[in-house]
Amino acid sequence: MKLASLKSGGRDGTLIVVDRSLTRYLPVPDIAPTLQHAIDDWASAAPLLNAVSAELNDGGPDDALRLDFTALASPFPRAFEFVDGSAYLPHVERVRRARGAEVPESFYSDPLMYQATSAGFLGPRDPVHVVSEDYGIDFEAEVVVVTDDVPMAVTAEWAAEHIQLIGLVNDVSLRNLIPAELAKGFGFLQSKPRSALSPVLVTPDELGDAWRDSVLHLPLRSWLNGERFGEPEAGVDMQFNFAELVAHAAKTRPLAAGSIVGSGTVANQDTGVGASCLAEIRMLEIIADGKPSTPFMSFGDTIRIEMLDAAGASIFGAIEQEIRRYGG
Amino acid sequence: MKLASLKSGGRDGTLIVVDRSLTRYLPVPDIAPTLQHAIDDWASAAPLLNAVSAELNDGGPDDALRLDFTALASPFPRAFEFVDGSAYLPHVERVRRARGAEVPESFYSDPLMYQATSAGFLGPRDPVHVVSEDYGIDFEAEVVVVTDDVPMAVTAEWAAEHIQLIGLVNDVSLRNLIPAELAKGFGFLQSKPRSALSPVLVTPDELGDAWRDSVLHLPLRSWLNGERFGEPEAGVDMQFNFAELVAHAAKTRPLAAGSIVGSGTVANQDTGVGASCLAEIRMLEIIADGKPSTPFMSFGDTIRIEMLDAAGASIFGAIEQEIRRYGG
Repeated sequence: MKLASLKSGGRDGTLIVVDRSLTRYLPVPDIAPTLQHAIDDWASAAPLLNAVSAELNDGGPDDALRLDFTALASPFPRAFEFVDGSAYLPHVERVRRARGAEVPESFYSDPLMYQATSAGFLGPRDPVHVVSEDYGIDFEAEVVVVTDDVPMAVTAEWAAEHIQLIGLVNDVSLRNLIPAELAKGFGFLQSKPRSALSPVLVTPDELGDAWRDSVLHLPLRSWLNGERFGEPEAGVDMQFNFAELVAHAAKTRPLAAGSIVGSGTVANQDTGVGASCLAEIRMLEIIADGKPSTPFMSFGDTIRIEMLDAAGASIFGAIEQEIRRYGG
Repeated sequence: MKLASLKSGGRDGTLIVVDRSLTRYLPVPDIAPTLQHAIDDWASAAPLLNAVSAELNDGGPDDALRLDFTALASPFPRAFEFVDGSAYLPHVERVRRARGAEVPESFYSDPLMYQATSAGFLGPRDPVHVVSEDYGIDFEAEVVVVTDDVPMAVTAEWAAEHIQLIGLVNDVSLRNLIPAELAKGFGFLQSKPRSALSPVLVTPDELGDAWRDSVLHLPLRSWLNGERFGEPEAGVDMQFNFAELVAHAAKTRPLAAGSIVGSGTVANQDTGVGASCLAEIRMLEIIADGKPSTPFMSFGDTIRIEMLDAAGASIFGAIEQEIRRYGG
């Protein structure tokens, strides 16, 4: 099934079930008012939501409403936990090679992951407001999963059972704030503002064979200002699968229901498929030419992030965002 | 006024108003079921909650209930944002001096702050479950503030107006996991598990003259296994006040209502007042003797953190936690 949230209804929006073709939907107030409510009580809510989904996919009921993507909030307008991995090592390798640094051997056995802000996710068509272009505005196209309650110190094998929803994220990054921030030693804060999830999140069964071994095996497509930017294969070069990422996050604490775990920027060794962020293109330029020639994003620039199934249909809907001057 | 949450009532507990002496309370279901609900609509809820508080402090009403600290959840059993500063530079200076490193000049003008997990706060009398003593279990006694909605890029001057609640936190730290984690460059994750807030949070007016210039001017007292451990003055050596910390956190994003902003471990230049974490004692031992002699916490150890007013009465109630083996 596919789940989303309307902007109307308060800070957490209103949970809706969306049909497979992303054209029709139903609110489900009798099952759960919000997606957080549903995931808090997933064992009870999921079968009821699935029944609504089946009915929608069968063409019913008559009172289903027409989906308008601009009316959607983030599926989780706010969440209690967002931890973001960096599981595609080609991304890490390029970033480090561009500054002449080695990739430590441990990076191939111990996931990179950081604690991200979860207090607000931008709607999938909301603009990204930034104070200054000097911050070095970039997008990062990633896959995310959402868990139910995960016990502390879970094994990766068991962690896989706790992955209940899958989606995409535009992990907005302010590149020029990163070096000084990371140099302080405490990780990202100002350099990672609010992100945007895809219009809908889907259950693993919705992906069929494309979801296996806790990896999503489809290209992740990005368009910058309407031009194809990249379509790396999310099923290739993912050093740690989502079960391993969830287990990493849960090593010393339980994960609460509704925890969002990100893959990191999707990247392949094959540079011919393009990239999922501007920083990586710039790194390739630095490696080739000694300096970057592609600028970061400017006010008015747009980014579109989407994943299509084998038949060419959009799975999660498209994230489509414009960069805008804050207060401008 | 003083606010807390009962464990009963679901994942977010049940909001209660507690009297000044921390002996009696009332649930307020007609005002807000949870503290998150109240802070989401603070302008409306606060006056109503204040009226209940005033009645409790006047000895009424007859149906007020007797407070049992063990029945309390964290005031926020889960929250959407927790960012923790490190505003007491003596703590930073000692940690760095112990490893022969300088404190960069920028640390005196640009706050250190990290994104912390907010998905679950331990109750104030809940045990701290840890898988292994080898993790290097430590407490950190800190002051926290809670904001309402804070706009992006707020000035420190305006940020002060958004501080609605004040409390304490035991920021549980797993010291032996920190070096490897920080070396990866992405900040704390596994080394900072769930923390515990104080039993109650209070509004700034409750602190009288002890709350001024966005700093709390009272000693923060810690007892380890029942013995006095430290009582550094929270009003001394705080390099950045809470308004500055809130503004730092909000530089590139709004802060959502209910965001929790921590001071970092309270520490003074005067080492005679003791410390607010074991790491700092160990650093002083390293500076003096070349090696630490005080061990980190063991299973069965207890920590008590409390702040008293000028008359010796507990303001926030005491955080009292025992370290326990996870699954043991």
